[in-house]
Amino acid sequence: MNEYTQGMINLKYPAGIQKSNVTSNHRKKKVQYGHRGMTLEKDIDTTNKYYLNTNRAIIHKKPTPITVVNVDYPSRKKAKITEAYYKTPSTSDYNGIYRGRYIDFEVKETRNPTRFPFINIHEHQVEHMRECHKQGGIVFIIMRFHVHDEVFLYPIERFLVHWDNFKNKDGRKSIRYDDVKKESYQIPEKYNPRFDYLKTVDEIYFGER
Amino acid sequence: MNEYTQGMINLKYPAGIQKSNVTSNHRKKKVQYGHRGMTLEKDIDTTNKYYLNTNRAIIHKKPTPITVVNVDYPSRKKAKITEAYYKTPSTSDYNGIYRGRYIDFEVKETRNPTRFPFINIHEHQVEHMRECHKQGGIVFIIMRFHVHDEVFLYPIERFLVHWDNFKNKDGRKSIRYDDVKKESYQIPEKYNPRFDYLKTVDEIYFGER
Repeated sequence: MNEYTQGMINLKYPAGIQKSNVTSNHRKKKVQYGHRGMTLEKDIDTTNKYYLNTNRAIIHKKPTPITVVNVDYPSRKKAKITEAYYKTPSTSDYNGIYRGRYIDFEVKETRNPTRFPFINIHEHQVEHMRECHKQGGIVFIIMRFHVHDEVFLYPIERFLVHWDNFKNKDGRKSIRYDDVKKESYQIPEKYNPRFDYLKTVDEIYFGER
Repeated sequence: MNEYTQGMINLKYPAGIQKSNVTSNHRKKKVQYGHRGMTLEKDIDTTNKYYLNTNRAIIHKKPTPITVVNVDYPSRKKAKITEAYYKTPSTSDYNGIYRGRYIDFEVKETRNPTRFPFINIHEHQVEHMRECHKQGGIVFIIMRFHVHDEVFLYPIERFLVHWDNFKNKDGRKSIRYDDVKKESYQIPEKYNPRFDYLKTVDEIYFGER
């Protein structure tokens, strides 16, 4: 699946196929199979490896939850899963420890230029992050707007204001790009680590400038 | 697999089959397929749900890491995984936040009456726990000795003394039951939550008696 979403970004279009159609097909597939945001996730995974190797933090992506239905044992040593299904995650994808603190976040991207639609995020994930924030963790969403090529660190408590409005049926089904920009902190893109989001965490949560 | 290991405990033996043989077969299978410790894990999962529902802590078991090789799409909505394999985990199975602190642990059980063999634990998991401890997390192993029907909370820094001796080739390939008993804290078994290990954490890490 990584290859698939990677392919999306560097796609070569054969003659006669219109770019807009290809893109919209691919976007549909992404939504159906629940593999949004894999490109930014790869960058964050690389960044986390860098943090791990430099003893800066221990932050891992959780494995994708899968329900195993059937397993074959072609040899005594190797179990081969022959039927399984993806499950909806009940927590956010990333957590770990930084400067002695519990850290928890979700990585999301959108190709929408003007807003972040809530359909991109599971309710369970939001509620999990709300609880982690209540317990004193450092909790946020790393959010990329593809069209603007901008990545933001969005503290969960600010995100929750919009989310709760939405859940109370009165609010919008999305957050405006302008609001995200106002309420979050842009993470500059570098060579290595690609997105040094812990530097942003230092500034916001540890008051370092 | 949960059913399988559950079955182990309440096994009915058909006439003519000796209990000892059945048990030893089952034990071999357990080792091969890497699903050790599932019974205690179930109790800890239930305990964690109790903690979650009572807002005491947010602690989850990570999904089992699986490498997906092939996926079919029998309908547009449902992805069916048709070939996949279990991966060796690179972190411990449980982590989360408690009283504002990062908490990280592994759950292990052995049927050996006199020692805990290191073969029960992956090197990656131990090294992960060592690093989390260095970063200031609360890190331990919850260890059950089946024969004695005892469950212990074993702080990782004490476990590491034995592990490092073992890795330096001079030491034993296991920790003696007597040493575990001396160096760890027994978690009493109750009705609900089954193993209130956070009470033990309160005593050890927060100095409450």
